[in-house]
Amino acid sequence: MPRVGVILSGCGVFDGSEIHEAVAVLHALDKRGAQAVCLAPEMELDEINHLSQKPTGKKRSVLMESARIARGDITPLSRVRGDEFDAIVLPGGFGAAKNLCDFASKGADCSAEPHTQRVLEEAHVAGRPLGFACISPALAAAIFGQAIRPTLTIGDDVSTAQALEAMGAHHKAAAPDAIVVDQANRIVSTPCYMTAQSIAEVFTGADRLVEKVLELAAMPADA
Amino acid sequence: MPRVGVILSGCGVFDGSEIHEAVAVLHALDKRGAQAVCLAPEMELDEINHLSQKPTGKKRSVLMESARIARGDITPLSRVRGDEFDAIVLPGGFGAAKNLCDFASKGADCSAEPHTQRVLEEAHVAGRPLGFACISPALAAAIFGQAIRPTLTIGDDVSTAQALEAMGAHHKAAAPDAIVVDQANRIVSTPCYMTAQSIAEVFTGADRLVEKVLELAAMPADA
Repeated sequence: MPRVGVILSGCGVFDGSEIHEAVAVLHALDKRGAQAVCLAPEMELDEINHLSQKPTGKKRSVLMESARIARGDITPLSRVRGDEFDAIVLPGGFGAAKNLCDFASKGADCSAEPHTQRVLEEAHVAGRPLGFACISPALAAAIFGQAIRPTLTIGDDVSTAQALEAMGAHHKAAAPDAIVVDQANRIVSTPCYMTAQSIAEVFTGADRLVEKVLELAAMPADA
Repeated sequence: MPRVGVILSGCGVFDGSEIHEAVAVLHALDKRGAQAVCLAPEMELDEINHLSQKPTGKKRSVLMESARIARGDITPLSRVRGDEFDAIVLPGGFGAAKNLCDFASKGADCSAEPHTQRVLEEAHVAGRPLGFACISPALAAAIFGQAIRPTLTIGDDVSTAQALEAMGAHHKAAAPDAIVVDQANRIVSTPCYMTAQSIAEVFTGADRLVEKVLELAAMPADA
């Protein structure tokens, strides 16, 4: 049974992980017999009222909120190494761009949360495939852009795509439920709610992402 | 396009709606071309730390937290009538037993949150089918038990089943991903995480629930 890390960034599209995307990833893994290991950094997030979409001025714990999606079964990123997993997948949501890195405020000048960066680098160096949904390819570009120039998609948003290119990635436009596969770098991405108009499109894209990531995980990196 | 109310009770299994179940319901509706209208009562919930599973002593708004699952698009229950929907579906989570009613603390002596009760009664009287997942059949028993003696399932938990029977319902055991259909009362239920061991089982049960509810919605009550 492949063991796949799923890095969460809170619980809710405006300040954490996008819930539909996260659940779609967990479902796609489970139905294929893979074990999901939910992970999150120990840090605070800026709470957004999801009714008004305005900041409340309060903080919440990324780990505690992510635990809601994981039904309590979550591990701090600080306690794992990336190479202990067969693959790692990240759903989107603003948390991927505000908590796991600061892309939302700094654009191409962003940097990643240290444990997120370490775990993803350890996984990549060990040849583990990585999957990035929605806005999380921005995090992939921040970590890997200059080093390996990955090909990624965030859908068709021009300014976001330009920011990814400025960080060293190649951007390839894709339909909401399509995946872009960087076979050499073993990185898969899909737009999900960057462009999807419905939860069904999100599930199709997340399902294709997970299917390809597991296919790559079953194929040794140097094969 | 059928328009289906989905009554949420917060965001997270221990103090609100069970997130996987809620998303499974939304996905099952969307993939069948039904429009989901997310609804929640305006009330406070007792926040549970989902890491420690202990109360924090703080309150959160059921409506604001439910909005996380609904990506901000949610309507207070006080502003709708049950008969404006073609059907109504409820996911589970402790919120269904602690916020939408007080079954978690009072068992068979529980009563329902007033707007939840009114909306479900309006829908039922108008012949609209109702779907209840996980622990939410306890709420159905609290509202409808004595009046219509519905047949419901919460899986196979003996004490919960006995409480439903004490409220006037008939309990029928069911596999985690199976549904129980009370055709005469147009009420469908499924155990989901009352007994499910995996998110894939939850999705199968929620999908069957939604499929049957939409089938009943397409069939007039007096046909």
